Amino acid sequence: MSIRVVLVDPNHPGNIGAVARAMKNMGLSELHLVRPKAFPHAEATARASGADDVLDAARVHEEFDDAIADCGFVVGTSARKRYMSFDLVEPRECAQLVAEAAQVGNVAIVFGSEKYGLLNVELSRCHRLVTIPTAGDYASLNLGMAVQVIAYEIMLATRAGAPAMPPPEVPFATAREMELLYEHFERVLEEIDFRDRTGGGHLMARIRRLFNRSRLDQNEMNILRGILTAVQSRRRTAGKTASS
Amino acid sequence: MSIRVVLVDPNHPGNIGAVARAMKNMGLSELHLVRPKAFPHAEATARASGADDVLDAARVHEEFDDAIADCGFVVGTSARKRYMSFDLVEPRECAQLVAEAAQVGNVAIVFGSEKYGLLNVELSRCHRLVTIPTAGDYASLNLGMAVQVIAYEIMLATRAGAPAMPPPEVPFATAREMELLYEHFERVLEEIDFRDRTGGGHLMARIRRLFNRSRLDQNEMNILRGILTAVQSRRRTAGKTASS
Repeated sequence: MSIRVVLVDPNHPGNIGAVARAMKNMGLSELHLVRPKAFPHAEATARASGADDVLDAARVHEEFDDAIADCGFVVGTSARKRYMSFDLVEPRECAQLVAEAAQVGNVAIVFGSEKYGLLNVELSRCHRLVTIPTAGDYASLNLGMAVQVIAYEIMLATRAGAPAMPPPEVPFATAREMELLYEHFERVLEEIDFRDRTGGGHLMARIRRLFNRSRLDQNEMNILRGILTAVQSRRRTAGKTASS
Repeated sequence: MSIRVVLVDPNHPGNIGAVARAMKNMGLSELHLVRPKAFPHAEATARASGADDVLDAARVHEEFDDAIADCGFVVGTSARKRYMSFDLVEPRECAQLVAEAAQVGNVAIVFGSEKYGLLNVELSRCHRLVTIPTAGDYASLNLGMAVQVIAYEIMLATRAGAPAMPPPEVPFATAREMELLYEHFERVLEEIDFRDRTGGGHLMARIRRLFNRSRLDQNEMNILRGILTAVQSRRRTAGKTASS
């Protein structure tokens, strides 16, 4: 079972330490950092308070895509109550999905920077968005606190004795494979001269959301790529006939 | 409903601030401090990060008994897996008990000092002991984190009604529209001569599962139908050119 925590652009090294401690308490050990402002750092070590092993093993990336490339299920976190057409889930439901997905592939839980959260380009890689419910208007969980709540729910969902979800039969498509699908899709849309009528060029963003939400497995990925290729080759054949 | 958080002998003012923030996020406002080492304190205010009102209203006591005197239900927190003959409950069950008790009287959730936890004399006042489950041997939740997890469970247990998720902004596609989509999809697959390689003619069943899972909204439905039509019309145009 591989469930990683990915922090994108974390600004305060103390928070990285607090996250490591929260993770270790709940049995998570894989920490990925994308462009941390300061790491390693004495404050991170101080706040980790015994979870130094998690910090020591942390992997640092320059690109977000590298941190999730081999993951079949990517969950983004958001403090917003609404987020476009995303299916927002709460931590408890999210933990069930994570427990299920972790049986067949790598899972990433992604947290944005303290100030801005996740950006659209990062959200476009996520299969689900999780939001921690809060009371009233004050919704300002510290980064470490947010990791703590989500890791706590994941621990409850995955510990021995927790109701076991049946594992999916076929592995999920990886984040890298999803990117290749979208590139292919975009090429085909150009080739068939499909006009973006969404206003503002949101077509690919919407297509991404639609398929991300669906969490494609490997078979479905093969079917979709096959259909795209069929559309292309028929058009090429037709084109050839036309010009011959 | 009155649910208070009582910190006994808190040693680090930063933790008091983190506790205030965690409380406010989860709708708790009554903070009681028994012999805080340093309070008020700039570090508490800094870590409270907008929950200053909780800090300002905090009540300071010299005696633990004064902090809980008017409470009908007192829950102690413990990191130990077993504690004497106490009924240990986990946060989820604890939150149910708290929600129930809060309807008829004041409730106190009591946290001991960062170093020693609650002492026997304090434990002797508690009706229940709650312990936050952890994974493996590392059980060292920061004080603020522990309050966050328990306050989170209390919020879930006491909020109005079922988990209220915001309604989607765009209506979902109807079952009828989904059927029209699948018919259209199937026609296009025939026109592009896409061969079913799933064995046993399961192609359309798999496509259905994929899109059903995604729960399409009306906008997405329009995009997909548009793409299918574009594939067809380009093929027809190409075909016409070929045969003309």
